[in-house]
Amino acid sequence: MSVRVDTQHLSGFVGENEYKALAPQVKLAHEMLHNGTGLGNDFIGWVDLPTNYDKEEFARIKEAAKRIQANSQVFIVIGIGGSYLGARAAIEFLKSPNYNNMKKDTPDIYFTGNSISSTALSELLAICEGKDVSINMISKSGTTTEPAIAFRVLREFLEKKYGKEEARKRIYCTTDKARGTLKQLATKEGYETFVVPDDVGGRYSVLTAVGLLPIAVSGADIDALMAGAAKAQQEYNNADMFTNPCYLYAALRNMLYRKGKEIEILVSYEPCYTMMCEWWKQLYGESEGKDNKGLFPASVVFSTDLHSMGQYIQQGRRSLFETVVLFDKAKQELYIGNDPENVDGLNFLEGKSMSYVNEKAFEGTVLAHTDGGVPNIVLHVPDFSEESLGALIYFFEKACAISGYLLGVNPFDQPGVESYKKNMFALLGKPGYEEQKEALEARLHK
Amino acid sequence: MSVRVDTQHLSGFVGENEYKALAPQVKLAHEMLHNGTGLGNDFIGWVDLPTNYDKEEFARIKEAAKRIQANSQVFIVIGIGGSYLGARAAIEFLKSPNYNNMKKDTPDIYFTGNSISSTALSELLAICEGKDVSINMISKSGTTTEPAIAFRVLREFLEKKYGKEEARKRIYCTTDKARGTLKQLATKEGYETFVVPDDVGGRYSVLTAVGLLPIAVSGADIDALMAGAAKAQQEYNNADMFTNPCYLYAALRNMLYRKGKEIEILVSYEPCYTMMCEWWKQLYGESEGKDNKGLFPASVVFSTDLHSMGQYIQQGRRSLFETVVLFDKAKQELYIGNDPENVDGLNFLEGKSMSYVNEKAFEGTVLAHTDGGVPNIVLHVPDFSEESLGALIYFFEKACAISGYLLGVNPFDQPGVESYKKNMFALLGKPGYEEQKEALEARLHK
Repeated sequence: MSVRVDTQHLSGFVGENEYKALAPQVKLAHEMLHNGTGLGNDFIGWVDLPTNYDKEEFARIKEAAKRIQANSQVFIVIGIGGSYLGARAAIEFLKSPNYNNMKKDTPDIYFTGNSISSTALSELLAICEGKDVSINMISKSGTTTEPAIAFRVLREFLEKKYGKEEARKRIYCTTDKARGTLKQLATKEGYETFVVPDDVGGRYSVLTAVGLLPIAVSGADIDALMAGAAKAQQEYNNADMFTNPCYLYAALRNMLYRKGKEIEILVSYEPCYTMMCEWWKQLYGESEGKDNKGLFPASVVFSTDLHSMGQYIQQGRRSLFETVVLFDKAKQELYIGNDPENVDGLNFLEGKSMSYVNEKAFEGTVLAHTDGGVPNIVLHVPDFSEESLGALIYFFEKACAISGYLLGVNPFDQPGVESYKKNMFALLGKPGYEEQKEALEARLHK
Repeated sequence: MSVRVDTQHLSGFVGENEYKALAPQVKLAHEMLHNGTGLGNDFIGWVDLPTNYDKEEFARIKEAAKRIQANSQVFIVIGIGGSYLGARAAIEFLKSPNYNNMKKDTPDIYFTGNSISSTALSELLAICEGKDVSINMISKSGTTTEPAIAFRVLREFLEKKYGKEEARKRIYCTTDKARGTLKQLATKEGYETFVVPDDVGGRYSVLTAVGLLPIAVSGADIDALMAGAAKAQQEYNNADMFTNPCYLYAALRNMLYRKGKEIEILVSYEPCYTMMCEWWKQLYGESEGKDNKGLFPASVVFSTDLHSMGQYIQQGRRSLFETVVLFDKAKQELYIGNDPENVDGLNFLEGKSMSYVNEKAFEGTVLAHTDGGVPNIVLHVPDFSEESLGALIYFFEKACAISGYLLGVNPFDQPGVESYKKNMFALLGKPGYEEQKEALEARLHK
């Protein structure tokens, strides 16, 4: 199995009978997902995406990535939410959180259009000064405020720098296959386009062109990434949670939720996993946080956060549990040397690898936290390869869908995201929102 | 006032009577803190630190920073928890989260020794290849596992690169003023040392040498930072929560906690505030998360996270509230231009600043979230200057102390942090922990 689930640190928190009680519901959720009879069934294109993707487009993505690597020192990805989290997470995981500071023969990669900060965008323009730049605008419609603002600014920057003709060759659009203003613009201007599939929601889109182009530009092997996901598609295709770890994870978090746990903390011991936690937070928070329900997704990176959130986890309110993601093989290894003076008292670790120490930190922590009343689910992943990442992504996506059905929500919509947008458009004076404007302004005590 | 509190988005959630009921308790907490009669009273050196700091050492910090700026391309800060979060947060806030990628005449700054990841440390060594490097080891004792391992590796790296004599001039230690093995080593080797004061805990230490040396190396004005904190010390020195915004914030979060809110989400609309949220999470999580109590501290950066955690906040479990930190003046400004084709439909924003749009995003969001049942506390900070940051740091520190006393905990200890360490030492076979080792290993089903 690509991802394994270890339940030993749940004994005392969840009983055998609870597993048995949930198994039929898991089977039902599986059937709903695979037969397309569940809520949100027009957004389940991701289920067989790892084997059923567009091979012609995939080849074009790899060609575009090569072109960008050859002619760009900076590659800018414009997108918000699911249109950037997956790609950024994969690049930091596979390459490094310090990717842009590493010596390498691939472009620096920046993500923008995911906030409305003038400072952040200004700084990016300063960083681009004097460098060769390509951009990837990712938006199904082309009208989402945050990326649209950034695209206006950066398109102007490119056209000023290169002229309209050359700029054209440096703009890549990932958007709807037929409709939408961005698609129209791309067709008119001759920008190369890639597709955001109709039946794959933003938070499930990392294995489409949305994620694949930036990941390929970083030099990661996207064939291996898809192969790992395809393997997981095969492995986690079984309705029985006792033999399907993906479903077991979905079941366990629901058992804990139903007995009163309110917060799930995703834990890693590797800094390169930090953005993967953010990707996971969107996936689970947006899929389940509705109808006044759902586990609140939080995350930490240990051991660093043992010296910040660790105190709360050990002794604060007992409303949380942890899900730990462990990698069985380190990416790079270092060994602890001898210090003749033994100033730090660490000579008992001489010759040991840091990974060994990190493993003992996990073991010590899991025992301390379970002693403190915090159930721990432990996931094992073989290594930091593209294959393993592809499998892990699919594991979390499918577990999320099953978990949402267990919870009794539509795991594929996000109706609450519209609320702030409507208010913002009205307050900005967008045509068509005139009536709401006055009422909202009155509420702001202006 | 340096930091103001806006309570308008709490009406409907908290009644006037609740304010009145809590005011005497706030006054009592103030007296306990200022008279030194509360729990943890041997760790309140931070209260008058902004005026009462060591001026001679402060001058030495500035000199050391100048020396490091002159002879180093990379400056490495080794520390965990409070020994790195504050400095990193301040540098990202004052300079940029992309500080290391900006064109500048100050060194790149990396933080290490805050995890046990061999990959992270290996990558840092690769980044240092061929560059001039200085390091700052921050540890009260010198024996904390994470920084001690990194210090072993980096000291060897420096001595190999420069020889022992030159390396000596590139190692700065921030440690106990008299005791501890790191202090002994520094004295013996002739490393320049700075002091972690006895009466200031790690999470309150950013305005001591712990934070000040790295912040100064980044080129930020630490005189202004201290001046801002000193102003706040003066401003928030009043026992009355109706005229002291710092105490009002402490009171409000306790009112919400006592009526069942479990999670406080710190919200910013600026990416450069991301690490400040992490600093805040340690400050509040470690101060209050004990005795099975305390608000769970979480954070988001909008508008990006409106497209991930936004759905949960709008419609998930109603156990949370938000505290929004707003800056009244942007660091850098950009204006939205005209697009003759208006592809994105944004021409109604022509000539508007991005900050204006960001402000409307906040207004739209605060109305949407309060409509969704999420109380919002709003903090206003004048700008992104060193003065404002100094004041904001002091504001949060003092509010945290008062909040802890209101909750009925010792806000200055962290007894839970020891639990994982003891287990880890035993599992690693550290001399003196032999007995526990066997029992722990048995529990791991080995």
